[in-house]
Amino acid sequence: MKKLINSAESAVDDALAGMAAAHPSLRVRDRVVYRASGPRAGKVGLVSGGGSGHEPLHAGFVGYGMLDAACPGEIFTSPVPDQIINATEAVDGGAGVLHIVKNYTGDVLNFEMAAELCEDVQVAGVLVNDDVAVQDSLYTAGRRGTGATLFVEKIAGALAEEGAPLREVAGMAAEVNERSRSFGIALTSCTTPAAGKPTFDLPDTQVELGIGIHGEPGRSRAPLASARELAEVAMDAIHGDLPLEGDLLVMVNGMGGTPLMELYVAFAEVSAFIDGKGARVTRSLVGNYVTSLDMQGFSVTICRLDDTLTRLWDAPVETPGLRWGR
Amino acid sequence: MKKLINSAESAVDDALAGMAAAHPSLRVRDRVVYRASGPRAGKVGLVSGGGSGHEPLHAGFVGYGMLDAACPGEIFTSPVPDQIINATEAVDGGAGVLHIVKNYTGDVLNFEMAAELCEDVQVAGVLVNDDVAVQDSLYTAGRRGTGATLFVEKIAGALAEEGAPLREVAGMAAEVNERSRSFGIALTSCTTPAAGKPTFDLPDTQVELGIGIHGEPGRSRAPLASARELAEVAMDAIHGDLPLEGDLLVMVNGMGGTPLMELYVAFAEVSAFIDGKGARVTRSLVGNYVTSLDMQGFSVTICRLDDTLTRLWDAPVETPGLRWGR
Repeated sequence: MKKLINSAESAVDDALAGMAAAHPSLRVRDRVVYRASGPRAGKVGLVSGGGSGHEPLHAGFVGYGMLDAACPGEIFTSPVPDQIINATEAVDGGAGVLHIVKNYTGDVLNFEMAAELCEDVQVAGVLVNDDVAVQDSLYTAGRRGTGATLFVEKIAGALAEEGAPLREVAGMAAEVNERSRSFGIALTSCTTPAAGKPTFDLPDTQVELGIGIHGEPGRSRAPLASARELAEVAMDAIHGDLPLEGDLLVMVNGMGGTPLMELYVAFAEVSAFIDGKGARVTRSLVGNYVTSLDMQGFSVTICRLDDTLTRLWDAPVETPGLRWGR
Repeated sequence: MKKLINSAESAVDDALAGMAAAHPSLRVRDRVVYRASGPRAGKVGLVSGGGSGHEPLHAGFVGYGMLDAACPGEIFTSPVPDQIINATEAVDGGAGVLHIVKNYTGDVLNFEMAAELCEDVQVAGVLVNDDVAVQDSLYTAGRRGTGATLFVEKIAGALAEEGAPLREVAGMAAEVNERSRSFGIALTSCTTPAAGKPTFDLPDTQVELGIGIHGEPGRSRAPLASARELAEVAMDAIHGDLPLEGDLLVMVNGMGGTPLMELYVAFAEVSAFIDGKGARVTRSLVGNYVTSLDMQGFSVTICRLDDTLTRLWDAPVETPGLRWGR
């Protein structure tokens, strides 16, 4: 295993120290990443979190227009309730706090426990479960939450910034999730620092269709194929679950080890597929946003936009991982 | 070799098609990437280019506040003079055009030839040669040009946007290069699609110190070490060449296959090293900006800032790869 770390044990804290050093807009305390500016009175607070190893998700999305705090767990491990409680209490500006939770059993349990224990804060939650690849998985009952988490954080974050009440922000977060679908394909495994060897074995001639962001098994193995064929597999799976119609927000996301050039090759194919269905790509993201350490591969996430969602997507955002318009 | 492409032959054009589909702000024609908005009368045009495989450099830096056009060559291969001539003539708004050229023999020759053939356009050039690792290299006489290219494109681009004349924009570009130094370390080789196998062999227990962005040899091999030790090697090399003083712009850049989490670990060490020298990190970038396909590893680039450079760095920029303040 070759990793740019000091030790497997210190990797998460060392990375958080780097985030704090690189981004004066963030404050890191007790394994929670906050906006340095603190909570804004009357604004709904947004808290997310999950295992580390998916950067920039979630800590890289803390800032104006997205999250108020992120709770990073150990690599591929849920944050503990104490982190979530601290974050929730710290970011409450009196209007309550929305928990954005990817559907993994550990995350769900720990966010639920934290919500119950935050007696003085009004807490609502949204469960993100956009991954159409499999029903039930290694760490999940039901569908897994993956790329749509970014969409939920961005769009609900913009609405919260406008001063909408908790009920509306939570409703919008749920709506974005309902309008979104994802599918991922791995070319290689990831390697966690603690394990020191690949999470799974994948022959040089095969890919894993429907991979999870922790290397959980997908639907099947298939021979390595062209970007066009792989994009079609992903898009057929998505289209079969939620027909591609109207205006779409489309993310082609790298799993961490795939060069940007290849992601653009995949985006061209995804875009052509969508054109072929008579739908329109009106907003897009291409890059490494919801990663799995050093895994090579990509995922596609689509969201059916309407005018409100488009406006909120376009609203200013200023985070280390996503920044525009301000 | 596992790559997300349709074929080695079509990879560059397929990726450019993806860029065009993803970014309505860009226009791609005959292997040149332009701002869709076209040249602005009276503004100095900025043109850069080089081999593909370093994305987002250069095409991802086309847009307001940076480049007017980028000329992508084949993977790790210089663009041809015709591309550069077309780009130069197309972006001239009457105030002349600056060629930003990384110091590789092929790039230098082809940009020089293009400049000579653009008889109706006033052309100035800046040669970027920030890499302190080696004097002369596989494709270079003198020092290689790497991460500082982004700084030159951003800072000179901001000055051009303000309406400065060609002489001043070219002078600023040269000044940014003189104030900047880089050093890179590879944990793994890259693999070009055409070759289909790693460019060089690097044992599992070793790293290449002073790697070039095409996999050119560096200073030496060394045992795989901690992020702290590797960061010290890079920073000692930089500090030994240009002492770290005053306000610094610091980029910790991934080579394409290294997860963002590890880049933050490296940034923490780089930042601590700079603190230890009594200098200050006042601006920073952490991410994959000047890449080498799927290579794992990182480079550090520093630039000594003054008030003018800081102001121009902070100026609005709106490109696929770098975006803020607008």
